[in-house]
Amino acid sequence: MRISELSGASGVPVPTIKFYLREGLLPAGTPTARTQAVYADGHLRRLRLIRTLTEIGGLRLRDVRAVLQAIDDQALGRHELLGRVHHALGPHLDGEPSPEEVRAMAEVDRFLGEVGWRVSRQAPARRALARALATLWRMGRDADAAVFEPYARVAGELAAREVATVSPTASRPEAVEGAVVGTVVFEAALVALRRLAQEHHSARRFEPGRGG
Amino acid sequence: MRISELSGASGVPVPTIKFYLREGLLPAGTPTARTQAVYADGHLRRLRLIRTLTEIGGLRLRDVRAVLQAIDDQALGRHELLGRVHHALGPHLDGEPSPEEVRAMAEVDRFLGEVGWRVSRQAPARRALARALATLWRMGRDADAAVFEPYARVAGELAAREVATVSPTASRPEAVEGAVVGTVVFEAALVALRRLAQEHHSARRFEPGRGG
Repeated sequence: MRISELSGASGVPVPTIKFYLREGLLPAGTPTARTQAVYADGHLRRLRLIRTLTEIGGLRLRDVRAVLQAIDDQALGRHELLGRVHHALGPHLDGEPSPEEVRAMAEVDRFLGEVGWRVSRQAPARRALARALATLWRMGRDADAAVFEPYARVAGELAAREVATVSPTASRPEAVEGAVVGTVVFEAALVALRRLAQEHHSARRFEPGRGG
Repeated sequence: MRISELSGASGVPVPTIKFYLREGLLPAGTPTARTQAVYADGHLRRLRLIRTLTEIGGLRLRDVRAVLQAIDDQALGRHELLGRVHHALGPHLDGEPSPEEVRAMAEVDRFLGEVGWRVSRQAPARRALARALATLWRMGRDADAAVFEPYARVAGELAAREVATVSPTASRPEAVEGAVVGTVVFEAALVALRRLAQEHHSARRFEPGRGG
């Protein structure tokens, strides 16, 4: 297909596709004339993945690049490939942790040990959880990580179900797409659903007159 | 307290505090000399709220401003105040919806009706959920919104518990802080915990040799 058709099928504007081509995120098409090229289904598939990573995942360009390079690096085993992808998906918390955050990280380590989850020291979500706890402290809540227990329980239920649906025989791009959809797209859905549920329950509690 | 002490207590650097003062997000302190002022506990409290909104909630400055103005606007009733806050918390999806997204929104409406949640037409999370569904379609998944059912179930459980902890007699700043913590801080924790749980379950399934 031509670049305009690639744009139509992916929903990505032509100038953005050209930008991805220049940046090497998308491999060049097959030239048909001095200024024209045709693109294959692999291009469309990659473009859709890039769009999901940026629009739903909110990934920075360098993290999109890390995901794509991991797919293309055939020397990476399946588990390492998915590890790289998960790391690129973030969240990315930069800067030195505050003293509060360091204290919260120790508490998060203790909590994860109690829950019995085996996660790498470098998992970015460890620090994200510690930051959430440190924020609670800063907002005057006298809490330890046990306050997250109901959240850990449902997160565990969802994750067990999600991991069970991963096909061990999927191709590399399929496996990465599966990981991205499972992590990023369903995360966006979960966050949206929780906000909708909060509105519903809040209205029920504080505006009972409106029915419901 | 002086601005340096306010900075120490809030963890917000002095230049950032000066920026908030210039922007009117933080009311001026009480002047003690031509270039000095002292700040009260209300300043510290507001500064902590601003930090949570920007760092954990990822809010844009104009949305932080909307939250603070809603707190200060005594003409707003409690329910309207919290509605404004929730709206400012986003997510903010700009631009015209794509035809795919429009189709997904109709499906999301149908789904919410089935689940029985009463949420306003303008709730930003409606569109966020529709976008997640449209993304699934784009990634080649042949799904309707029923795919979100397990997520809606746990979101409903969590929200019911969260709303039950809201005190109806809290002051305006307390009520807003409660809404922000409940929505934004626990959302960050939930997202982090789901990612940690995914890593744990993925390792159990795909690296069983490492024990588990």
